[in-house]
Amino acid sequence: MSHAHGFASLSAAPHYAVIFSSQRNGLDSAGYDAAAARLFDLVQEQPGFLGAESARDAEGFGITVAYFTDEAAIAAWRDHAEHRAARQHGRGHWYAGFQLRIARVERAYGGRPADAAPAAAAKDDA
Amino acid sequence: MSHAHGFASLSAAPHYAVIFSSQRNGLDSAGYDAAAARLFDLVQEQPGFLGAESARDAEGFGITVAYFTDEAAIAAWRDHAEHRAARQHGRGHWYAGFQLRIARVERAYGGRPADAAPAAAAKDDA
Repeated sequence: MSHAHGFASLSAAPHYAVIFSSQRNGLDSAGYDAAAARLFDLVQEQPGFLGAESARDAEGFGITVAYFTDEAAIAAWRDHAEHRAARQHGRGHWYAGFQLRIARVERAYGGRPADAAPAAAAKDDA
Repeated sequence: MSHAHGFASLSAAPHYAVIFSSQRNGLDSAGYDAAAARLFDLVQEQPGFLGAESARDAEGFGITVAYFTDEAAIAAWRDHAEHRAARQHGRGHWYAGFQLRIARVERAYGGRPADAAPAAAAKDDA
């Protein structure tokens, strides 16, 4: 798989989430798509990477959430040379704006389909 | 505004994020859209609500992240009667699957446009 698709595995809490929201500027779709696919392949080799989910709407607003075991894994990915270069290029060429949030996942639940449904799914709590 | 659109304001950390990822089943789009708009109006009246971002792709996979000041605000929204009813209806009628994660936002940054760009945007750190 060359890009995030569908649900990330539900890892045990606590772990960490990198929440990246962005507005594409509509330029260089081929370059952007190639870089996104390359970075998704790279991050899967990153120690402590747990999974990622991504969605981008028809207006080019997107949210990608990448999950890691801990802050050290996030820092290592942040400092990955190819990731850093792509990030710096993207800020100047692909995005009209972006926001990045680092968060500690305290609880995680899933529901339907079976591959996303631990027992917790039956509960109506968050 | 009747639905989450674009960037949420960058609130000071720490605060909390409710990360809801879901796969629509493609059914009852009118009912789903009406409920989503209604819930977005309701959550904005919720004490402790800081903002939300949402994106859904052409395949019906979506991520919505709602930000709250604290866990008490999340619990109050979770227990909101209309929200609870919509959530229970949605699990049976609108989604092929979903995942919910509650996370404590430790750091937040933004970059371009100006309305999403505090000084931290100039840094290349996460």
